Amino acid sequence: MHHAADILLTLFIIFVAAQIGAEIAQRLKLPGVVGEIAAGGVVGPSLLGWLTPAQILPGTPLDVLAEIGVVLLLFSVGLETRLDDLKKVGKNAFLVGVLGVIVPFAAGALWAHGEGFEWVKSLFVAAAFVATSAGITARVLQELGVLQRTESRVILGAAVIDDILAMLLLGVVSSLQGGGTPDLQSLLLTLAGAIGFVAIIGWGGTQVMRRGSSWLEAPISPHSALSVVLAICLGLAWLSTRFGLAAIIGAFLAGLIASETRQRDQLEHQTMPLLAFITPFFFVVTGAKVNLGELAHVDALVMLAIVTAIAIVSKLAGGFLGALSLGRRSATIVGFGMVPRGEVGVVIASLGLAAGVFNERIYAVIVAMSLLTAMVTPPVLAWLLRRDVPAVEPGPASNSD
Amino acid sequence: MHHAADILLTLFIIFVAAQIGAEIAQRLKLPGVVGEIAAGGVVGPSLLGWLTPAQILPGTPLDVLAEIGVVLLLFSVGLETRLDDLKKVGKNAFLVGVLGVIVPFAAGALWAHGEGFEWVKSLFVAAAFVATSAGITARVLQELGVLQRTESRVILGAAVIDDILAMLLLGVVSSLQGGGTPDLQSLLLTLAGAIGFVAIIGWGGTQVMRRGSSWLEAPISPHSALSVVLAICLGLAWLSTRFGLAAIIGAFLAGLIASETRQRDQLEHQTMPLLAFITPFFFVVTGAKVNLGELAHVDALVMLAIVTAIAIVSKLAGGFLGALSLGRRSATIVGFGMVPRGEVGVVIASLGLAAGVFNERIYAVIVAMSLLTAMVTPPVLAWLLRRDVPAVEPGPASNSD
Repeated sequence: MHHAADILLTLFIIFVAAQIGAEIAQRLKLPGVVGEIAAGGVVGPSLLGWLTPAQILPGTPLDVLAEIGVVLLLFSVGLETRLDDLKKVGKNAFLVGVLGVIVPFAAGALWAHGEGFEWVKSLFVAAAFVATSAGITARVLQELGVLQRTESRVILGAAVIDDILAMLLLGVVSSLQGGGTPDLQSLLLTLAGAIGFVAIIGWGGTQVMRRGSSWLEAPISPHSALSVVLAICLGLAWLSTRFGLAAIIGAFLAGLIASETRQRDQLEHQTMPLLAFITPFFFVVTGAKVNLGELAHVDALVMLAIVTAIAIVSKLAGGFLGALSLGRRSATIVGFGMVPRGEVGVVIASLGLAAGVFNERIYAVIVAMSLLTAMVTPPVLAWLLRRDVPAVEPGPASNSD
Repeated sequence: MHHAADILLTLFIIFVAAQIGAEIAQRLKLPGVVGEIAAGGVVGPSLLGWLTPAQILPGTPLDVLAEIGVVLLLFSVGLETRLDDLKKVGKNAFLVGVLGVIVPFAAGALWAHGEGFEWVKSLFVAAAFVATSAGITARVLQELGVLQRTESRVILGAAVIDDILAMLLLGVVSSLQGGGTPDLQSLLLTLAGAIGFVAIIGWGGTQVMRRGSSWLEAPISPHSALSVVLAICLGLAWLSTRFGLAAIIGAFLAGLIASETRQRDQLEHQTMPLLAFITPFFFVVTGAKVNLGELAHVDALVMLAIVTAIAIVSKLAGGFLGALSLGRRSATIVGFGMVPRGEVGVVIASLGLAAGVFNERIYAVIVAMSLLTAMVTPPVLAWLLRRDVPAVEPGPASNSD
């Protein structure tokens, strides 16, 4: 009857650490998410060791909770986004997505080749520089209550484009690395599938929801609308992985179409307690994955500094160029919003390690870079957004924590 | 980046199955929870096999989600309960708890001895007849909106007593089985610890919350009160396992003390979406654990029928006698409310199997009995409660689904 005791203690530790971290961060005028990630670093294997490395491996209960947490987060971000608003920024989002992939990929490949990797391997390493992880930025935008700003919409739209391109790129470099030549036909099929998925769900789902949301009107309980859209969220999160995309893309689309229903406000309200309970697990587990021990050499630290600088500057440059028509300030915000690589870079690095492309040090550096970009972005983004509009009232800034 | 795909599909299947099951059950005028458990049986290993046995073992992500689900459920039940109301039914709850343990224990021991077990082993088997699992009944009472009735309070109070006694009993029979004699001193210490835990948390926590709930008043966000009580819930759920009690007892106490705060209504409101999302995992996983294959023999089915009858009648009799001063109708309701054994009987059976006391068939029978009592109770309880007060309006009955 007590097998669950250990996991309950761990859940308690993570949850409390997240609250304390968020509270401290907010007193330091930083976004709460910075504190939650840092709390993960503190309770994780590198420092206190209250979370063991085995507890945060893929497929463990904590990893699954973290995954559910980021899925619900992007669902709630989608719920605060309207398709029509995204369409208005379509051209900018497309440019940001494309340039935000090309520039870091090129920069990463040049760096890796300079480090002595042959070109094919360099392209694999470069792939780890590419994919933006929308979770961190989305949380900051939500926390600051600025999801309705043009820059936020460009970032969210670009994150979808970015994920499609990153997936294709990973396909190409994997097949190059496997000694094959990328099969243009199958790549085009994959691309068509991913674009088709996003287009059909985004456009078709929106139409269905606009016309048919009366069937969501609770015959049975006020929570059945919530249950229906949560089911759609889980279903699309899974389905989007079937098209090679990240689960959070499907979750975002689910929120996007749910935002067209009449129950939108009620759903937004009901999603908040779910976020409050579950998303801390995502951020704490993300922070816990930084292995400080493997970076305890000067060489590794220097490499980490260079890699992180390349990752930040190249993504910032790509996003900035793509969004330049919005003006320099907005373009800077968009560029920084695309910087976090989060867990996606970690996964690519794991694939590279398994394939023998990465050695242990490069792996640790790439993982740390991914997490550093995730740590660095929130304060910079918050500073840029607050400076930009000093009139942002403190109310919404804290509403969604 | 797609390691999470499989688990997302499983979560989607479980969640949708729960909604469909609940919907069908409610159309058949049964409590939704019956449909959710039955849905687990359908998608589980015995029928469709969409959930494999390995996916629902202790410590797996689904098992942890189920555990969180039942913890949150009992937390929300505690939130709808006041300590003062529980105190008023203290004497009845105590009698129901004590007699509801003694009668099934005696009946189980007699049956097991009649089946040819020696006395010491019979006592171990009998222990699996004892512990009421409050989750099922709590959900039915919540679904019907009758948590404020005297019978509901007696059941909830008795569930706490029941859990303390069951834990002691398990300690005694384990030590007898291990060839030792129960150490009276350590048993008394355990008893004192458990009673002390419940009393200090229940009474002391209530005092603290009554006086100090102003510190919960959100300086930072309207969700920080929720985060604080959720942290308390996880902490007490874990702590209660340290005192040998089920995690749900700690969660119930956490809800009980949170119900003394000024934010009570807001917290109740915010907990509902959490329940809507997470508790289905508990009931579906519970249903999925019934292994119909092992019961596909006439002998086993006959034994199951007898064991289930003994388990139901003995618990009903104990509860009925304990609550007789409330009148026969109320005593019947209380008696049936104590019937579900749920997962607690399953865990004792697992211990028995590991210790070599149970053979495979007895194990399967005890597991099936535990789950059958969980399946049988909701419709009977709903029928008794609806018949008793035909004026129960449909509104609250569906509010908390």
